[in-house]
Amino acid sequence: MKPKRLCILFVLGFSFFLWGCTGSQEEKVDLVAVGDVITEFRAAVNSARTDEILVRYAEDAIILPANEEVVVGKQAVSEFWNRRAYTGIELVEEQVVLNGSGSIAYEVNTSIFKYQLGGQEPVESGPSKNVRIWKKQADGAWKLQVDVWNSSVPQPMRSSAISP
Amino acid sequence: MKPKRLCILFVLGFSFFLWGCTGSQEEKVDLVAVGDVITEFRAAVNSARTDEILVRYAEDAIILPANEEVVVGKQAVSEFWNRRAYTGIELVEEQVVLNGSGSIAYEVNTSIFKYQLGGQEPVESGPSKNVRIWKKQADGAWKLQVDVWNSSVPQPMRSSAISP
Repeated sequence: MKPKRLCILFVLGFSFFLWGCTGSQEEKVDLVAVGDVITEFRAAVNSARTDEILVRYAEDAIILPANEEVVVGKQAVSEFWNRRAYTGIELVEEQVVLNGSGSIAYEVNTSIFKYQLGGQEPVESGPSKNVRIWKKQADGAWKLQVDVWNSSVPQPMRSSAISP
Repeated sequence: MKPKRLCILFVLGFSFFLWGCTGSQEEKVDLVAVGDVITEFRAAVNSARTDEILVRYAEDAIILPANEEVVVGKQAVSEFWNRRAYTGIELVEEQVVLNGSGSIAYEVNTSIFKYQLGGQEPVESGPSKNVRIWKKQADGAWKLQVDVWNSSVPQPMRSSAISP
């Protein structure tokens, strides 16, 4: 091969290297794929299919339920969901944002959830809001890493926390 | 330059490109730098220095305060903090996790906050927990993108939300 051609190839190769170094490809999170997983997770929560809910959580997932202690790890997450014997009626979530970078994506939603406990009267929970952080696993699957929610309804009985 | 040397240079350049493509560098979030920003943010919240709190938030930041509506954008974030006329006494946060990928980092903490409103008696808020999502800006600074917290104390007056 002629030196000139080799030189062009080198410049091309080195340009690709520099382009790689800018980290621009780290922004290319497939938010459509994440959105599909979110849709499936919501459907599983809505219909109270505990197995299908649990399969979405990462092994080291963390849940921060409102008015309960933090839940750390898949075993604790499993116990958390298995304690909730409810029948979902309707989960309505409105996405405020869905974004990501590298192997992390996050969503912010407002929500209202109608459900039933045992044979009791239906309950409407909300308006609430939640943040979910998803992490791309080694096999490419997006798993729920952090799951946190709180109520948007004022708490009349004690002063609400200023921060955090 | 000799063709052989050019060939070596090309192979080197192309190897760097392939290495760049693996995305391995996308995991290299400088968590020490993020940790420093977190320490400064906590100090600002603790001492109620509103300007120093606000400078940490991104332009499109979102706050999800417990028992309040979602707060979207820097203007609303600014109004949120300016409404809170408190004197911080002691903020104790214990980090559950700090992780990140690409231009995103997130922290999960449990916390207790002692503060005073006006001339009133000191209040202890908590135990609470929070999730903060930080985003690396174009200039390299880490800014607070999503800020959410809730109480770990059971809510006696109405059934706590099952999910979300």
